[in-house]
Amino acid sequence: MTTDLATLPLPTVKDVEAAAVRLKGKAVLTPLLESQLLNARLGGRLLVKAEMLQRTGSFKFRGAFNRISLIPEADRARGVVAFSSGNHAQGVAAAAKAFAIAATIIMPSDAPAVKVRNTRALGAAVIFYDRWTESREAIGARLCEETGATLVRPYDDPGIIAGQGTIGLEIAAQAEAAGARLDACVVCCGGGGLVAGTALALADRSPGTPVFAAEPVGFDDTARSLAAGERVANAPGATSFCDAIVTPMPGAVTFRINARLLAGGVAVTDAEVADAMRTAFDALRVVVEPGGAVALAAALSGKVPVEGRTVAVVCSGGNVDPEVFVKVLADG
Amino acid sequence: MTTDLATLPLPTVKDVEAAAVRLKGKAVLTPLLESQLLNARLGGRLLVKAEMLQRTGSFKFRGAFNRISLIPEADRARGVVAFSSGNHAQGVAAAAKAFAIAATIIMPSDAPAVKVRNTRALGAAVIFYDRWTESREAIGARLCEETGATLVRPYDDPGIIAGQGTIGLEIAAQAEAAGARLDACVVCCGGGGLVAGTALALADRSPGTPVFAAEPVGFDDTARSLAAGERVANAPGATSFCDAIVTPMPGAVTFRINARLLAGGVAVTDAEVADAMRTAFDALRVVVEPGGAVALAAALSGKVPVEGRTVAVVCSGGNVDPEVFVKVLADG
Repeated sequence: MTTDLATLPLPTVKDVEAAAVRLKGKAVLTPLLESQLLNARLGGRLLVKAEMLQRTGSFKFRGAFNRISLIPEADRARGVVAFSSGNHAQGVAAAAKAFAIAATIIMPSDAPAVKVRNTRALGAAVIFYDRWTESREAIGARLCEETGATLVRPYDDPGIIAGQGTIGLEIAAQAEAAGARLDACVVCCGGGGLVAGTALALADRSPGTPVFAAEPVGFDDTARSLAAGERVANAPGATSFCDAIVTPMPGAVTFRINARLLAGGVAVTDAEVADAMRTAFDALRVVVEPGGAVALAAALSGKVPVEGRTVAVVCSGGNVDPEVFVKVLADG
Repeated sequence: MTTDLATLPLPTVKDVEAAAVRLKGKAVLTPLLESQLLNARLGGRLLVKAEMLQRTGSFKFRGAFNRISLIPEADRARGVVAFSSGNHAQGVAAAAKAFAIAATIIMPSDAPAVKVRNTRALGAAVIFYDRWTESREAIGARLCEETGATLVRPYDDPGIIAGQGTIGLEIAAQAEAAGARLDACVVCCGGGGLVAGTALALADRSPGTPVFAAEPVGFDDTARSLAAGERVANAPGATSFCDAIVTPMPGAVTFRINARLLAGGVAVTDAEVADAMRTAFDALRVVVEPGGAVALAAALSGKVPVEGRTVAVVCSGGNVDPEVFVKVLADG
């Protein structure tokens, strides 16, 4: 069952292109948004990839659908398993439904009711575990062994990375259609699958464009790992309201790609993220969740400068509780 | 200067098609959004035209750009004038900027500062009038006479209607691409330009699809005019938070089209509109302003049934003050 992630063949742009063919008509070709007022304020051109408009409200559907399509047909019929209470859960559930196969999502027993309800409404079975006394990995491994189901990891998997990379292909094509040459691209980063896939695509389609990972302060493991040249973990004790991307350290597969292709990483504060969410509301009229707004925050804060340049950012998701959004707007 | 609106030649689908050619690459081809969870809840298929993603955050840019393109070139250079403190102001300002001509927007002196600022940031000059002691029509007429500028009306104009109608062409093409046949289409209605244009396009591209106007309760002048067979005004004293579409009575030009092409009108309450705004936030991750949410409210409330059917609705704009949006989310 275990895979040696350190020696797994890495995906290439060919894998991303194959994923794009599979996803055509299945995933939403999300728009690359632009605001004249925002551009005037920044003195440059900001292009925003609107993945909150993707199926299930985040980019996760792309990777999940592509990964499931790579499972040999006989095995695929036995279904898939994932650990998640968030965007990955819904992405896997919706992708499994598209293949008409069973999905089982393993969630902590204290997961928010709305997330459980939404995952079930997408046709998935939910199994709960006690996060203090049980191991979700052990539950998942037993389930896969008993049923022949395939585990779908959230990021550290070539098929997932290739699926997320379709965002990079779309950004390059949409920027070209908008008459833009990209001086930089900034991508939200938790485990690093989205930025790795996007970098694979842009290295081919827009080779002069540096790609940056954006992370919350205190969870900038990818930025520090890039600087160190090896994977380093976050110090314990940090907090951030960017719940979707507070991962402990870069993935083994994703970091092999990111170490080679990324220009660096930037860390943003919760206040900068909240400001980015307000700006997305005001100037772009879209809902961005905290973890989905870090790349936009990096551009708006000037940590990746937009002045005199053209910069693309990925807003990776929009699944945010109304209470959190109200607080963000009211604090502005 | 005056035009006899009752005898003005009406636009046809050919005018809408010509507008689409002019707008290609200028206006955003906004997506037709769909949510699996929302469809499951409604027991049907709901397609949402996301015009909050249009330039300046509402559909108004389409009509303004098309109207300006119809001004003879020598006159066009003398600029345009509009009365508005809202979406029409920004649509006209952005369209004039695209033509590199001057725009003067006549606003009440108590217009919200942010709207004045945004209109100016789009390059327009703003002239204030006192809404208790001055006539904006007189100010506009004098300005046009003195400068040779052209007045751009918000809805009662064939060029405006044809421009808004491009939304109908896009809905028909996008629904077909999504494998959908439309059982109904619901469109927000103030003066009636958007619904008239959309109906012109759908009568040609999706001839079996009934088109409905959605209005706020107390401002359902188009619904009552359709029932009466002639234009009737709203009774004074009604209130609604759908500020963008609280017009006194149907337009003379728009009603001539709507009387012929619409299947009817539905009126929704502020509470139904607020619920629609929350659903758009939750299920579609977009920001819809109150006036832009009435068609969605008509579908979600069952006033235009979705169960067992496929219904398209236009969400026409997303320019809402954060304070209003916070109140809507917090009340949910």
